[in-house]
Amino acid sequence: MFDIRPVGYVIGLLVAALGATMLLPLLLDLLSDNGHWPVFLESAFITILFGSLLALSCQNAVGEGLTIQQTFLLTTGVWAALPLFGALPFVIGATDASFTDAYFEAMSGLTTTGATVFSGLDELPAGLLLWRSLLQWLGGIGIIVVAMVFLPELRVGGMQIFRSEAFDTLGKILPRAAEIASQITWIYVFLTVVTILLYAGLGMSFFDAVNHALTSISTGGFSTHDASFGAFQGAPEYAASVVMLLASLPFVRYIQLVNGSAKPMLRDSQIRTYLTIILVVAVVLALFQVFYDRRGIEPSIREALFNVTSIISGTGYASVDYQEWGTFAAMVFFFLGLIGGCAGSTACSVKIFRYQILFSAVVNQIKALHSPKGVFILRYDGRPIGDDVVNSVISFFVLFTVSLGLFAVALAMTGLDFTTSISGAAAGLANIGPGLGDTIGPSGNFSSLNATAKWIISAAMLIGRLELVAVYALLTAAFWRA
Amino acid sequence: MFDIRPVGYVIGLLVAALGATMLLPLLLDLLSDNGHWPVFLESAFITILFGSLLALSCQNAVGEGLTIQQTFLLTTGVWAALPLFGALPFVIGATDASFTDAYFEAMSGLTTTGATVFSGLDELPAGLLLWRSLLQWLGGIGIIVVAMVFLPELRVGGMQIFRSEAFDTLGKILPRAAEIASQITWIYVFLTVVTILLYAGLGMSFFDAVNHALTSISTGGFSTHDASFGAFQGAPEYAASVVMLLASLPFVRYIQLVNGSAKPMLRDSQIRTYLTIILVVAVVLALFQVFYDRRGIEPSIREALFNVTSIISGTGYASVDYQEWGTFAAMVFFFLGLIGGCAGSTACSVKIFRYQILFSAVVNQIKALHSPKGVFILRYDGRPIGDDVVNSVISFFVLFTVSLGLFAVALAMTGLDFTTSISGAAAGLANIGPGLGDTIGPSGNFSSLNATAKWIISAAMLIGRLELVAVYALLTAAFWRA
Ligand SMILES: [K+]
Ligand SMILES: [K+]
Repeated sequence: MFDIRPVGYVIGLLVAALGATMLLPLLLDLLSDNGHWPVFLESAFITILFGSLLALSCQNAVGEGLTIQQTFLLTTGVWAALPLFGALPFVIGATDASFTDAYFEAMSGLTTTGATVFSGLDELPAGLLLWRSLLQWLGGIGIIVVAMVFLPELRVGGMQIFRSEAFDTLGKILPRAAEIASQITWIYVFLTVVTILLYAGLGMSFFDAVNHALTSISTGGFSTHDASFGAFQGAPEYAASVVMLLASLPFVRYIQLVNGSAKPMLRDSQIRTYLTIILVVAVVLALFQVFYDRRGIEPSIREALFNVTSIISGTGYASVDYQEWGTFAAMVFFFLGLIGGCAGSTACSVKIFRYQILFSAVVNQIKALHSPKGVFILRYDGRPIGDDVVNSVISFFVLFTVSLGLFAVALAMTGLDFTTSISGAAAGLANIGPGLGDTIGPSGNFSSLNATAKWIISAAMLIGRLELVAVYALLTAAFWRA
Repeated sequence: MFDIRPVGYVIGLLVAALGATMLLPLLLDLLSDNGHWPVFLESAFITILFGSLLALSCQNAVGEGLTIQQTFLLTTGVWAALPLFGALPFVIGATDASFTDAYFEAMSGLTTTGATVFSGLDELPAGLLLWRSLLQWLGGIGIIVVAMVFLPELRVGGMQIFRSEAFDTLGKILPRAAEIASQITWIYVFLTVVTILLYAGLGMSFFDAVNHALTSISTGGFSTHDASFGAFQGAPEYAASVVMLLASLPFVRYIQLVNGSAKPMLRDSQIRTYLTIILVVAVVLALFQVFYDRRGIEPSIREALFNVTSIISGTGYASVDYQEWGTFAAMVFFFLGLIGGCAGSTACSVKIFRYQILFSAVVNQIKALHSPKGVFILRYDGRPIGDDVVNSVISFFVLFTVSLGLFAVALAMTGLDFTTSISGAAAGLANIGPGLGDTIGPSGNFSSLNATAKWIISAAMLIGRLELVAVYALLTAAFWRA
């Protein structure tokens, strides 16, 4: 077996960094004078101590870089280990959560899923609310770096198509990660600050503005209110629609934009397709409301736009219970969640570029039926793409579909009804947040599920966030023999 | 555009043949002396007249054979046109059905789906019941010929993998169709007769035995009783399990068996995989009932075996409302229907061989992640398979998944609930028959759906029966330009 210590080293450092982040809610609770700051002191102490010890004990094995196997293990290891520590404040703090609930919430945060097991959010201490938002914000920046650096390099799920893009000249995995991470982080921080100002300017309290900015930019969807974004109806819904949209575009386009080149963004077929879908579906749902439910035009457009953007981007805020618009709307939202945003962003699910490639493959196949001797080359964004990419995309799609089915069966086995099982599996695997039905729908939460169901959904969130293949690769014997 | 008259000629002949078949229920109603025979006289007259006129008017254009385009059009044309005439007895007869209901029932018959809009089956005249069964029996033999001759030749959905098998030396499409059709028909008739004797020997009335033999061997699932196979609990359930299993194996293996070679059947990996799935799922569901519901061992095994075979083979008989076993069972049955039987039989859905190929593709892809320089060849049944087959299978899977979603959305738009919409789309597209929920579940039927929903499901049945690609190919402009 390969040496797992370099993996332990990086995980140790990240755990320690997570612990350091706990000082922010600690500071907030101190300033709020609500008496809850010891929760974060204790959590930070345990987390930093454990992380440092792990890093130190593995340090002597750290060499030039990571092998493919080590990189795979690192990716899954980070997202499985960090929630263990991210969960501490929920166990120790005012939520007084079981380990299952706390791990679920932390996993939901770090994978930017946004499914919550807590109700009475409005009453929680400020520090805990900020901690939930921070988990999503950290998970968001983490996943962008993974999606832009690690997954293309590991050729997971067709992400290799984005490998050479914009980073042709960079070197090995880790230095490249550092380079990209710093550029992306600046853009991510900038967008977050702008969003805070925007939300505050539109009437949110500064605390709400900060929390919702953190969870919008990460397409996370945690809120500080049980009513979710329903607490901010009107102009903030338009603002959030734009922010969630920006958060689910490929971040490489922002780097190019900052470097003075707007063309790649304007010409990106993934972005065009994404915008077209949002526009068409939002208009259809708005018309549906105007004509069938006799609602006003402005609220219909606003709520359709907000909720469509929220679900397709995988943010998962709800401003209304859209199930009241009828089963047609509910079904549309279910499948919107299975589309997802653009690759290279914080959005999850199958993603636009994969549907573009699958669609081209099907069209080519049908053309070949008529002209058996014709040769049809698969293109993405105008450039021919190799079999390697196509096969990866297909593997992803098959694994996604089959995993969705298996998770739904597993959830049904815990006693959940058909709608809750299927939509719960989708809400977890595609990192959306809300499901359908009374229990886990947009106006419900995941608290009443039994422990087994929560662990199943936690696993789905992890597997979905890491594009499935990156996790499933660990399950093969060949992986560990290498 | 190409000449569509040769297509019209074959459709005309088949319509006339369908009209001739109506003489069987006519004879039965005459013998039963129930006064219903004029229904079939009138229907037969119209059908034979129309079919003959169509064939005669197109006859002068009939030449050497059919082009690819003509063959595509023929396949879809036959399954869209025959239900128009198969529906006549339901409109004229005691069911007094609307055109929508009658077309739905005839389409459900000819595609071997088995979803019914009629209740009070036990009270219907014998001729109408026999007509429903005959539609399925004819549809079954029709689809085997299409699946063994036309689809491989048209390279639809990966079926080309079965192209050369056993028929290497045969000539052009139409002569080959005649050759295979005659061999298959003998086997099909033989199996039907054996099944009649088996069912009658186990206590069914001769009439019930004939009808259920016709709808078992075609994996159709129409019954003469509202209780479906629940009217024959006990030994007939074991017998039917075996018959449905035999009906969903590749029929080419029977031809080989008759010619003295049992090896191909014993070594067929598709058959082995299929049997393994049935066995494992039936045992799990039986154990589930024994331990959780504290039921007896024998009825648990019997009902699990019967209903698992019924759903995975796409027959769709129900002997009990398995939704009472809990949502776990319901979810398992939902996904069993999306697996389906073996290619080259009357079974529908995605089918075992496609999952085998998709699974191999995913495994190869994951192997390639670890060993980027390795070359992994895709095999099916031990033989390497070409990109053409893999691409076709993938296109099929993508089209199937996306179509399922779109049909579910369309059904939800007609006002059906989430479970009914999704399971109704699956029941139609995969030609299973029953869906889930109170309305269209195993103890319900499709009568209460509105006309739009019925037309949507009729379209799904047609598209699913012809392996999707064969129908979708007609929707491209390139097809008609050729
Ligand atoms: K989310
Ligand atoms: K059926």
